[in-house]
Amino acid sequence: MKTVAVIMGSTSDLPVMQDAIDILKHFEIPVEVDIVSAHRTPDKLMEYGKSAANRNIGVIIAGAGGAAHLPGMIASVTALPVIGVPVKSRKSIDGWDSVLSILQMPGGVPVATVALDGAKNAGILAAQILGATQEDIHKKVEEFKEELKAKVIEGSKSLK
Amino acid sequence: MKTVAVIMGSTSDLPVMQDAIDILKHFEIPVEVDIVSAHRTPDKLMEYGKSAANRNIGVIIAGAGGAAHLPGMIASVTALPVIGVPVKSRKSIDGWDSVLSILQMPGGVPVATVALDGAKNAGILAAQILGATQEDIHKKVEEFKEELKAKVIEGSKSLK
Amino acid sequence: MKTVAVIMGSTSDLPVMQDAIDILKHFEIPVEVDIVSAHRTPDKLMEYGKSAANRNIGVIIAGAGGAAHLPGMIASVTALPVIGVPVKSRKSIDGWDSVLSILQMPGGVPVATVALDGAKNAGILAAQILGATQEDIHKKVEEFKEELKAKVIEGSKSLK
Amino acid sequence: MKTVAVIMGSTSDLPVMQDAIDILKHFEIPVEVDIVSAHRTPDKLMEYGKSAANRNIGVIIAGAGGAAHLPGMIASVTALPVIGVPVKSRKSIDGWDSVLSILQMPGGVPVATVALDGAKNAGILAAQILGATQEDIHKKVEEFKEELKAKVIEGSKSLK
Amino acid sequence: MKTVAVIMGSTSDLPVMQDAIDILKHFEIPVEVDIVSAHRTPDKLMEYGKSAANRNIGVIIAGAGGAAHLPGMIASVTALPVIGVPVKSRKSIDGWDSVLSILQMPGGVPVATVALDGAKNAGILAAQILGATQEDIHKKVEEFKEELKAKVIEGSKSLK
Amino acid sequence: MKTVAVIMGSTSDLPVMQDAIDILKHFEIPVEVDIVSAHRTPDKLMEYGKSAANRNIGVIIAGAGGAAHLPGMIASVTALPVIGVPVKSRKSIDGWDSVLSILQMPGGVPVATVALDGAKNAGILAAQILGATQEDIHKKVEEFKEELKAKVIEGSKSLK
Amino acid sequence: MKTVAVIMGSTSDLPVMQDAIDILKHFEIPVEVDIVSAHRTPDKLMEYGKSAANRNIGVIIAGAGGAAHLPGMIASVTALPVIGVPVKSRKSIDGWDSVLSILQMPGGVPVATVALDGAKNAGILAAQILGATQEDIHKKVEEFKEELKAKVIEGSKSLK
Amino acid sequence: MKTVAVIMGSTSDLPVMQDAIDILKHFEIPVEVDIVSAHRTPDKLMEYGKSAANRNIGVIIAGAGGAAHLPGMIASVTALPVIGVPVKSRKSIDGWDSVLSILQMPGGVPVATVALDGAKNAGILAAQILGATQEDIHKKVEEFKEELKAKVIEGSKSLK
Repeated sequence: MKTVAVIMGSTSDLPVMQDAIDILKHFEIPVEVDIVSAHRTPDKLMEYGKSAANRNIGVIIAGAGGAAHLPGMIASVTALPVIGVPVKSRKSIDGWDSVLSILQMPGGVPVATVALDGAKNAGILAAQILGATQEDIHKKVEEFKEELKAKVIEGSKSLK
Repeated sequence: MKTVAVIMGSTSDLPVMQDAIDILKHFEIPVEVDIVSAHRTPDKLMEYGKSAANRNIGVIIAGAGGAAHLPGMIASVTALPVIGVPVKSRKSIDGWDSVLSILQMPGGVPVATVALDGAKNAGILAAQILGATQEDIHKKVEEFKEELKAKVIEGSKSLK
Repeated sequence: MKTVAVIMGSTSDLPVMQDAIDILKHFEIPVEVDIVSAHRTPDKLMEYGKSAANRNIGVIIAGAGGAAHLPGMIASVTALPVIGVPVKSRKSIDGWDSVLSILQMPGGVPVATVALDGAKNAGILAAQILGATQEDIHKKVEEFKEELKAKVIEGSKSLK
Repeated sequence: MKTVAVIMGSTSDLPVMQDAIDILKHFEIPVEVDIVSAHRTPDKLMEYGKSAANRNIGVIIAGAGGAAHLPGMIASVTALPVIGVPVKSRKSIDGWDSVLSILQMPGGVPVATVALDGAKNAGILAAQILGATQEDIHKKVEEFKEELKAKVIEGSKSLK
Repeated sequence: MKTVAVIMGSTSDLPVMQDAIDILKHFEIPVEVDIVSAHRTPDKLMEYGKSAANRNIGVIIAGAGGAAHLPGMIASVTALPVIGVPVKSRKSIDGWDSVLSILQMPGGVPVATVALDGAKNAGILAAQILGATQEDIHKKVEEFKEELKAKVIEGSKSLK
Repeated sequence: MKTVAVIMGSTSDLPVMQDAIDILKHFEIPVEVDIVSAHRTPDKLMEYGKSAANRNIGVIIAGAGGAAHLPGMIASVTALPVIGVPVKSRKSIDGWDSVLSILQMPGGVPVATVALDGAKNAGILAAQILGATQEDIHKKVEEFKEELKAKVIEGSKSLK
Repeated sequence: MKTVAVIMGSTSDLPVMQDAIDILKHFEIPVEVDIVSAHRTPDKLMEYGKSAANRNIGVIIAGAGGAAHLPGMIASVTALPVIGVPVKSRKSIDGWDSVLSILQMPGGVPVATVALDGAKNAGILAAQILGATQEDIHKKVEEFKEELKAKVIEGSKSLK
Repeated sequence: MKTVAVIMGSTSDLPVMQDAIDILKHFEIPVEVDIVSAHRTPDKLMEYGKSAANRNIGVIIAGAGGAAHLPGMIASVTALPVIGVPVKSRKSIDGWDSVLSILQMPGGVPVATVALDGAKNAGILAAQILGATQEDIHKKVEEFKEELKAKVIEGSKSLK
């Protein structure tokens, strides 16, 4: 089975990005975690992105804040799908900088952007991507959606 | 091979969404195109989303503008990966409404959002998603990236 | 007398939405409260909206945050007036996502949007809607407005 | 049957507001149109709002742009439901001023806000409000929704 | 000497508006303080604005938050200069609603807008307005500016 | 009678600022027009502001776009009231830069800000400022407001 | 003398970036122009940035639009000062994406950002940077500033 | 060696601006610190800027918040490179006012703007500017970048 890489610009992004790791483990998908900074370790970024497909990685989740270049730069050196998580970092302008510098990629180099601090959804999306062609993972996501539904139904009952 | 569905809320979105269709054809990936309006044909939306996985669809690309609910609602009824294209429709508030109502999905139901009017990238992302587990498509995306690079190099030369 | 339905995407929206319930009780209008999640219980949403008019409901108040699709999707399956309350949820981008995904509905399917976290006004608006054709409720809203006025006059006096 | 009032701050708002008038006529609901400027004819505004309920008006639709005070001020002097249409006037800051000065009403005095330049939806909402207690109008709105659906289905067919 | 009126929509605005009162007292300019709510006491607003010039008032300072209509509506019924203070109220969308609904007045009816929560500057501006034709007040403002300068020079020295 | 100064950062601002000049002439108030650039002629700005009160000027209207420093810097060197007109210049980011760099002055140094491109209102405000203590100008503004009202009433009639 | 490099992501940025080239030629500073795309030619970007200091380049001006990563990524691989020009490209969200993805760089890796489409200022800033330690260039910038001033004075005269 | 001036509008900006001072000391570059308020000490500002080049200053770093005019006005009276630090002051509208009034300078008078509260980067940029022509400083910045990289590599290891 393909591995999902979860990378982030700084250890300070880990509390947000942990949600992606947790949900992938819930789906029993192998995860590889690393710190790769676009601006402080650009060579590592290049190497990481270029070698990813050959290291059995199927999807890359990249989280970053402020002028968040990690997801887009990783996407520039791999043909794998890259999921970008805009992180609302401490000095971010309410998250707008993180969101826009990940989302607004030019034609040719997409980044699959999720909500601000939406690492959990990044993990689920990675599972859905692998599930697009692998029935067993697709089934797990379907079960997960049933659990979500069950919790709402329960919440509705407790209200009454 | 899996089919990619390209749906949109209105025929007026077609000029934008055509870019997704064209690039998918370039990659020789089967495409299915339809008009599905979240607000005017909600039943069709539900049916469309629920049956997609069984109709051999692997990825759904959904484009919509304004209070753009189509991508998120489709994502609520399928475990397939859904790519959302925010369309800058005529009455949109500079595109912010389209972007935020697609991007800011709650935990549990991701939509892979691309740039405003970024249908071409949606098509490429769909190819990358299928390519995550299918080597031949992955190769085609790699070749596409080489072509992009070649064009820039050429542009650089013509400048000198 | 018609009932007013107050629904919300999650129990976490209840602290905000309680204001709508309270003011409707103040006006002695029957209220029905439920949790209906657009993204986690889409089937319930469809059923809820379609059956509302037949269950003697006259107005639906729907509160949601982030990519808030509940009000607009309910409006897509009922001809009843739907009031949308944008909730400033925990991960919302300052409330802009909630506001724009409720307000900017396409032509044909309106949602009567109130202020961010404005559940109290949603309740008053529901009373005004029923009062448009029912004199007794109209009178109660008039009295309520007199009370508002009296409080300001009092505040003005205490200042002096 | 109750009349729906359609008022606006200036004759320059008429091209936008005409959509409300047209759809109300389509529903065969009596319409009264007038120019009432919050800032240039405040006395007329007060008188208009105070006398509306007694002149058999059931719903007031008010359109204005920029620092748009007309909807909120009308709502301050009547217990009738008031629908606000933010108009993107010539000097508006992309419509944000119109939207925020209508939407963000304080607790106690709601304005049912629709999308920027969304006069058509204001008209439909007025019909839904009267239809909340009048079965015949409710039916007409239901039929209108069927027509919307039919047009999308047709658009979908023409695509294929 | 003319009196400066300081009015606000609610007693909850007083902590912000007190700065205007204090600086006016510093300049020994007579101040009149009142609560006038555009939306809850519209008749009082009309009466207040219309009678102001005859009650020896020279400038009106009006503070309000959210969909802040008080300054603009007062300006609609008086030919006196009106200074608007956008207040960042509890449910305000980061202050944007307060700022835009005061600033963006249509041609013909100006409101002299100061910074968000800038009540102190509103008081100084009122003094400057009276000082435009009254030499003694103009001198006091000049002295005040000298004091501001002295404090900065002192701060600069303490740094070294 | 006091003169009103109308200054602007560049001749390209004249088409916008002409509205202020015209309305002041309508009120028969003496006007002095000049080009004063904060960034290109800072010495002239300093001299202009410092000498204004002694040259019989009562109010200064300053228009500028982008990082608009002219109104605030003039206000720093005079105790006269300064009215700032945010101009939506060619490279402005939708006018937000012009508005915020004029409006958000620090405590101690107010600028009376009017709407984006609101030069006409700046002229009226200048008249109101002089009218605060001069009955004849106050009367002229009152008449002007009557004319505004008459035009709306006329517009209302032509509609019917 | 050091050379100033002017690079941009695409030939479509040339009309904006030409202003930087022209003003540098005016200052008789050697200029090197190239197309370097962060997302399409990442290897070239790395090589370009790393070798710049050794190729006698003193300052790098980088222009890009949308999710503009070129300036920040160049800054990550060189210790030279990098000036970023946010370009308002065709699909940009009013320029906000370009501005924020260049400006909001994390601690450690600065980009000297100029105004939206502000290539002329980028060129002047490059001259000022070289002039910080080279008297002759400093003098040229001083002369340039005198010319700017002269033009304003002239404009002021033509007005009278 | 040239000195770097670090100035700010108020002592309250010092906690933010200290980062610039610290990093410059780390690079062993002489620093001069002062309080210069554009709006309260405009004469000092003029004198400071005009004399800077003659006092052996090579770069000026200016920090300010709200309607932040200090960086731009200093830039208007010197041909030295000026770095602007937008400070998110207490009453700032989320920092947007500080950012836009520093960044959006008109053609002819650039300010090298860094991120919101980005004083550390301002200090590094000043070092890079001096390093553009001075090899020893350039080397120190290169070493600093190596340290940044080392910390990320370490963080990456500690994660595993």
